Amino acid sequence: MLTERISAHIEHKDLDSLKALLSGLEDVELQFAFNDLTDEEQVITFRLLSKAAALTLFDQLDTEHQENLLSSFTNERTIEFVNTLAPDDRVRLLDELPAGVAQQLIANLSHEERKITNLLLGYEDETAGRIMTTEFISLRRKMTVAQALDRIRQQARDKETIYTLYVTDSMKKLKGVISLKELILAQPTDVIDRIMTKHALRVHTSTDQEEVARTLQEMDLLAIPVVDKEERLVGIVTIDDAMDILEDEATEDIFDRAGITGNETDRSDLLVNGSLWRIWKVRLPILVVTLGFAFIAGFIVDGFEEALESIAAVAIFIPLIMGMSGNVGTQSSTVFARGVVLGQIDMKKFAKPFVKEILVGLSIGLMLGVITGVIAGLWHTPMLGLAVGLALIVAITVASLLGFLVPFLLIKLNLDQAAGSAPIITSIKDIVALLIYFLFVSIFLGVVY
Amino acid sequence: MLTERISAHIEHKDLDSLKALLSGLEDVELQFAFNDLTDEEQVITFRLLSKAAALTLFDQLDTEHQENLLSSFTNERTIEFVNTLAPDDRVRLLDELPAGVAQQLIANLSHEERKITNLLLGYEDETAGRIMTTEFISLRRKMTVAQALDRIRQQARDKETIYTLYVTDSMKKLKGVISLKELILAQPTDVIDRIMTKHALRVHTSTDQEEVARTLQEMDLLAIPVVDKEERLVGIVTIDDAMDILEDEATEDIFDRAGITGNETDRSDLLVNGSLWRIWKVRLPILVVTLGFAFIAGFIVDGFEEALESIAAVAIFIPLIMGMSGNVGTQSSTVFARGVVLGQIDMKKFAKPFVKEILVGLSIGLMLGVITGVIAGLWHTPMLGLAVGLALIVAITVASLLGFLVPFLLIKLNLDQAAGSAPIITSIKDIVALLIYFLFVSIFLGVVY
Repeated sequence: MLTERISAHIEHKDLDSLKALLSGLEDVELQFAFNDLTDEEQVITFRLLSKAAALTLFDQLDTEHQENLLSSFTNERTIEFVNTLAPDDRVRLLDELPAGVAQQLIANLSHEERKITNLLLGYEDETAGRIMTTEFISLRRKMTVAQALDRIRQQARDKETIYTLYVTDSMKKLKGVISLKELILAQPTDVIDRIMTKHALRVHTSTDQEEVARTLQEMDLLAIPVVDKEERLVGIVTIDDAMDILEDEATEDIFDRAGITGNETDRSDLLVNGSLWRIWKVRLPILVVTLGFAFIAGFIVDGFEEALESIAAVAIFIPLIMGMSGNVGTQSSTVFARGVVLGQIDMKKFAKPFVKEILVGLSIGLMLGVITGVIAGLWHTPMLGLAVGLALIVAITVASLLGFLVPFLLIKLNLDQAAGSAPIITSIKDIVALLIYFLFVSIFLGVVY
Repeated sequence: MLTERISAHIEHKDLDSLKALLSGLEDVELQFAFNDLTDEEQVITFRLLSKAAALTLFDQLDTEHQENLLSSFTNERTIEFVNTLAPDDRVRLLDELPAGVAQQLIANLSHEERKITNLLLGYEDETAGRIMTTEFISLRRKMTVAQALDRIRQQARDKETIYTLYVTDSMKKLKGVISLKELILAQPTDVIDRIMTKHALRVHTSTDQEEVARTLQEMDLLAIPVVDKEERLVGIVTIDDAMDILEDEATEDIFDRAGITGNETDRSDLLVNGSLWRIWKVRLPILVVTLGFAFIAGFIVDGFEEALESIAAVAIFIPLIMGMSGNVGTQSSTVFARGVVLGQIDMKKFAKPFVKEILVGLSIGLMLGVITGVIAGLWHTPMLGLAVGLALIVAITVASLLGFLVPFLLIKLNLDQAAGSAPIITSIKDIVALLIYFLFVSIFLGVVY
């Protein structure tokens, strides 16, 4: 009866009602119905339970049924079902798995299986939960160094790292860390609790993977423990994974900056070895967007057609104004981006570096503007020289300002990861530079539109 | 007598003659004269000896004189003298130090002192020799595991890493490596020679630091041994140094690409917190160079002034042609650069990806060119549409071609590290795009210059 109700909810993908139904059940009721569900129904039901209820149920299952449940996480029909869920449903409905269950599950999966199953674990993409490994050795506080070394000898063969050991209590809560070096230097009779580092640095399953990698790098750690909401140890992230993450993030940044979109894990390979069709899919979108901006730039020039018709020389300096303000703006954006990454610019104290950058822009604008204005004045007419020079000063200053301000706002609005923000910023700077130029041309050459 | 001749050569900075003089001396003669030299003269003389002669001399000195010589490497007058040498003289005249002397020297220096003294060690900037540490533990082949663990316990406190151990012979030659994990898993009576990894991966003191870092990353190593020309172990590079190097190199690349020059170790800090004067020094040079290119672009437009005067609408599409070919060219350069770094593009098999990229450029050019041509044709005249569309197709294809070819040639000519290559390539692409555009305008609008 209850079994059928659960099956029906799953069949209709009505997970909200199912979750409500499950939360009202007694442990015994649930356990009874659970055994009659199909494998994939068991997984879905299990994942919709609260963390506490899931742990109770799991502990009540015998070993065979526990194993069956875990292996059902990767069965084809389960995966199919999960793939039909909207990503926000997954996040909203699925709690973290209990640490013990998550550890067992991850430990038994191949790398490929983990990728698919991690969705079911309730860990978001690009978080510590998605990249951690469970191949670590945990110790107990009351162990002596000799006992700890014995355990390490027994378990070392299957573990990714044995150079950092994690001390947990019976509830799997992380109590401290100790390095193999410290163990080797200690007396065999020393007790772990006395020599371990308490309050060890840790990250949560939901911590962003780039933050995890940067912490490992900055603290010169070989590995960092990952805990769940109850501070239970569920995995570790090692330094070699951190290096790969930083490399991947750098590559992503570089592609985004060049207006190459997409989330392929190996965009670089796709771009060199992929089909034309797939290459267009990552390269064309931003190009089409910037083509739109280019037409806007065209409309601006068109709006000043009279000016161009009476003094064709005005067109001569279009590439110069656009190019030079573009170059200075790119410098400013680079200074800002690296400053934030490397910690010289604090997002909360933005005013000071911002004013400084505008000053830098203004001073550079003055130098290049005067040189260009003089040359343009001698080459054509003094008035054109004046217009070009002043326009360049203002355009370069504004480009510096935008080069800092736009990425700052994008970060504030959480849009900085948006693919192709760089070419779009460039397009905006182009349009602003053209407007400034034609404004000065109109003023000094008397051709007001 | 000999002492005075040596002093005179040093005073006149005639190192070539001094080197020739020294190479003709008997060991005993040299040893005799050496003790009468001043501290800094001793260092210079010592560094001009061949590696073998230096080792012989060093071994003949008593401990006190050895220590005195080593400490003279950092004395102020020695540093002053070295700073007056031209960099190529240093490279030409100074051989590697004998491994044992180099190890002792580096081990006793602070980080700051090492920076100055490394010049005297004969290691080039940005090589393994400049970043290695000597805080490693070396073992002998005939040791048992128990003996090795004893040695590790004795030395662990002062060493940067004890997780990889290096096996050397009496000549300090690297014979193998073994991890602490392997030692822990082995029997106490096992002999190192039987369980170590022979032919261990190694780098030379002259290996480029980025290559060292990438090897560590790709091989998932915690540390890599650094050997000199005779395969003697002189130091190690650890994973945390490798991560810092990759980060620094990435930052350098990013600044170079934005046309921000200079070799400051912390350019990012300088750019945010430095004086205006110092900021100009890193940001202005490339801007002045690109200003020159912008004037060339101006001359091209000027050359077609007649065309502009008769059809002012021609100017409307100048920003579009320049911008779109620039965007596609940047994408191509990015694909090339990442492809080389990540190994999808082999510099020796350049033809295939090059042809593919031109095809990609042509296909993208066709799509954007047709769209733009039709819009331009409807907006103004069909002939202008035809000129703009065809110009865009050709300009985008050429931009793709240049985006691959120019960086390829720069690497071939060893100029890829040249600061600001990116803005200069952009300027060249701008000029080419303008020339193509006006060529088509001349053909289709009948205004031949």
